[in-house]
Amino acid sequence: MSKNLTTRAEDYSKWYNELVVKADLAENSGVRGCMVIKPYGYAIWEKMQAELDRMFKETGHENAYFPLFIPKSYFSKEASHVDGFAKECAVVTHYRLKTGEDGKSIEVDPDAKLEEELIVRPTSETIIWDTYRKWIESYRDLPILVNQWANVVRWEMRTRLFLRTAEFLWQEGHTAHATKDEAIAEAEQMMNVYADFAEKFMAIPVVKGYKTANERFAGAEETYCIEALMQDGKALQAGTSHFLGQNFAKAFDVKFATKEGKQEYVWATSWGVSTRLMGALVMTHSDDNGLVLPPNLAPIQVVIVPIHRTDEQLEQISAQVNDLVKELKNLGVSVKYDSRESQRPGFKFAEYELKGVPVRLAIGPKDFENGTYEVARRDLLSKEVISKDRIVDYIMNLLDEIQTNLYAKALDYRNSHITEVNSFDEFKDLLETKGGFLSAHWDGTPETEEKIKELTKATIRCIPLDQKEEEGKCILTGAPSNGRVLFAKAY
Amino acid sequence: MSKNLTTRAEDYSKWYNELVVKADLAENSGVRGCMVIKPYGYAIWEKMQAELDRMFKETGHENAYFPLFIPKSYFSKEASHVDGFAKECAVVTHYRLKTGEDGKSIEVDPDAKLEEELIVRPTSETIIWDTYRKWIESYRDLPILVNQWANVVRWEMRTRLFLRTAEFLWQEGHTAHATKDEAIAEAEQMMNVYADFAEKFMAIPVVKGYKTANERFAGAEETYCIEALMQDGKALQAGTSHFLGQNFAKAFDVKFATKEGKQEYVWATSWGVSTRLMGALVMTHSDDNGLVLPPNLAPIQVVIVPIHRTDEQLEQISAQVNDLVKELKNLGVSVKYDSRESQRPGFKFAEYELKGVPVRLAIGPKDFENGTYEVARRDLLSKEVISKDRIVDYIMNLLDEIQTNLYAKALDYRNSHITEVNSFDEFKDLLETKGGFLSAHWDGTPETEEKIKELTKATIRCIPLDQKEEEGKCILTGAPSNGRVLFAKAY
Repeated sequence: MSKNLTTRAEDYSKWYNELVVKADLAENSGVRGCMVIKPYGYAIWEKMQAELDRMFKETGHENAYFPLFIPKSYFSKEASHVDGFAKECAVVTHYRLKTGEDGKSIEVDPDAKLEEELIVRPTSETIIWDTYRKWIESYRDLPILVNQWANVVRWEMRTRLFLRTAEFLWQEGHTAHATKDEAIAEAEQMMNVYADFAEKFMAIPVVKGYKTANERFAGAEETYCIEALMQDGKALQAGTSHFLGQNFAKAFDVKFATKEGKQEYVWATSWGVSTRLMGALVMTHSDDNGLVLPPNLAPIQVVIVPIHRTDEQLEQISAQVNDLVKELKNLGVSVKYDSRESQRPGFKFAEYELKGVPVRLAIGPKDFENGTYEVARRDLLSKEVISKDRIVDYIMNLLDEIQTNLYAKALDYRNSHITEVNSFDEFKDLLETKGGFLSAHWDGTPETEEKIKELTKATIRCIPLDQKEEEGKCILTGAPSNGRVLFAKAY
Repeated sequence: MSKNLTTRAEDYSKWYNELVVKADLAENSGVRGCMVIKPYGYAIWEKMQAELDRMFKETGHENAYFPLFIPKSYFSKEASHVDGFAKECAVVTHYRLKTGEDGKSIEVDPDAKLEEELIVRPTSETIIWDTYRKWIESYRDLPILVNQWANVVRWEMRTRLFLRTAEFLWQEGHTAHATKDEAIAEAEQMMNVYADFAEKFMAIPVVKGYKTANERFAGAEETYCIEALMQDGKALQAGTSHFLGQNFAKAFDVKFATKEGKQEYVWATSWGVSTRLMGALVMTHSDDNGLVLPPNLAPIQVVIVPIHRTDEQLEQISAQVNDLVKELKNLGVSVKYDSRESQRPGFKFAEYELKGVPVRLAIGPKDFENGTYEVARRDLLSKEVISKDRIVDYIMNLLDEIQTNLYAKALDYRNSHITEVNSFDEFKDLLETKGGFLSAHWDGTPETEEKIKELTKATIRCIPLDQKEEEGKCILTGAPSNGRVLFAKAY
């Protein structure tokens, strides 16, 4: 298996695109901007889904399913939402095709035009709040804590696998509450759930914060976010959680009777993460040899490759390995014994390296005689020889260690790429040379934010939750500021 | 909680529609023909998904994800497929909206017309085989055993919750094989997986068989199916598995190099079940009091309701019940303790009866003193008083017993509704009076099948796999036949 992977230093963007395809994560389809998620990539996404779903349920949420299509008029109901979402979207105008006059081609039947066009959901606030109106009468019906796993479509002009695709998979939580405080607490809770998931499961350190008005979700009063940093110094928004105020309740007329019998509008949140996380995963940990996967998300955590010349050797080795496989499976480890005869060990080594399998065991006739395995760890590309008597314990510890190490490494990188800057020259310079998060004073106006974006392509990723009070001057205008915000170029 | 449910005898169809809504399974949305699957209904679907997914993986399949949209031209490539699927469908013609002249309404932007219209997938054979062309070069790449969980859209004119909706959720397996025999074996295997799932998990007995040419999937050479019987004597096709021959491989030019180096077309199968199974579940087991759920699929398997007058009584009862809840949870039982003060016990009893919770425990001050629980089982609507010392064992056994009993009851009904008929008069008469499957001789021609359908609305549900050789005469034409097929009116 020849990799021929472009290196990160040569061209980070090309490295990413090649890796996603060569490691069998995803590929472009015959439909512009829509990807095919291949089985190996989907297996990682399934692991993400399973853990997130568990976390959502643990925090009291249930799943449901709402329609793919949204009538066009629904979007006009929430003024800021329509500008944000209903513009670049897939529009269904007809409901029938017919055979053309050549008897073979098919064409749209002009007699089957819809009275009202349907939009393929770019996000589901409108259709869900149209439904919640029927579900909510009194405070007894609140809170509603619902999540949906679904596909959504946003007609992006420039697409990249996982990072920006016309169709993507995501989950969207939509909750309804009796009070403002409860809704804000929910939005914050879900930001924390996302941060925990990113850090503990994906081994990706994130900054928790909230967005400026410019960067807020269309229809939100506050957007909380988690921001990660990729190896090329660009930031990636990994998840958002929105406090929507009463905006959607007002747009869709959703009121509830309070305990005291008053009619009040319901308070809302929404929150989501998507297959974009797959891009973040690849770009945080992987290297020039291919994917590097944290054990928690690896479809195959341990692979075992036999090395043999004779059938008899293979038989002996297999008998021993099959016991090990059984033992590891009983401990919940996902393990694969690759005894394919059609490929050589070297090919297999390269394949599992490319695919980021955390731990690789090799066993040849000499190892067999000595009662050892050769254990290679993917994150450090290092090898050790381990006695078969302690191999199980060793592997269990190693999986933990790799998970911990990947997080530590990413945290190191991230922390060394948060730089305080105090002048616009320094800002521009660092943005080009080092990248990362630039912690700087800003005068708080959308105009300045916009201007900085125009001049440098950097945006305010977030106002960190742990922002310190500090007197300072805006790097662009010199106007007073009392806290630093995080700028970065972003995916 | 007042139920006011129409009875099955009064109006079976109305009973079904009301039950689905009142038991919080699903409801109609603001989008024609598209349903909202509510949390309680979705929780049942999730249990179905989890078990099916486990069964698919156990038989070697992996999940993947393919695009929602299919270019119109793909459908013209497989001649019979286009007639079956590309006619009544949602067509995306534009990719942008713009604000209207009033500055508020939004309208389709005529400048954003797609060069080629996109069809929202009604089924994914075409886009998947377009992809498999890139994945398959040699026999080493085969078999491909892939499944996808997805939403699909078919523009049905008359829709009913779960049974027939414009958008529905399903899984579709798409496999590629080197030989015809292997593909046929796969299609048969998946029919058997579906039958096992229906019988063991859903407690629904099914007839395994294959379809006549008229009823085959558009593009298939053989369609295997499982057919269930509802309580009104109508059949419901619960799952299908298709041997597709080389039709899609030829349409999308998918060849592989054999071991001997020859180029050959790949053999295909596809197979699917959908949220339609939810309809089958409701109609097989439920009664005039509401849902009846088999324990394997019940989101809540056991509910416990306290009965008390004083806070002190509630405290005592709760302390004891909390221990029981913990013990049952440790045994993997999904249990809910409903100590809401806002509703009376009677309301709760009616609610859980309507929602089909298999086992309901009640405990009042007297039960507490006597060390007992009152145990009600939903399937028989019967009650017993059980000592708290043996309550856990009792519940565990009861859950098994209910699962077994529901299957036995449905099997009894089904078996007593397969009737051999030997004349067309008898056929018509039984169809109106008793319904069920009518086992009859047929001359094997599509014309006769069509004629019988016109005259009676009955279709050939399947040629049973266990069909016996038997000389006979077609009930309509009198022409010779050598085996009986199963007719029924169907959903």
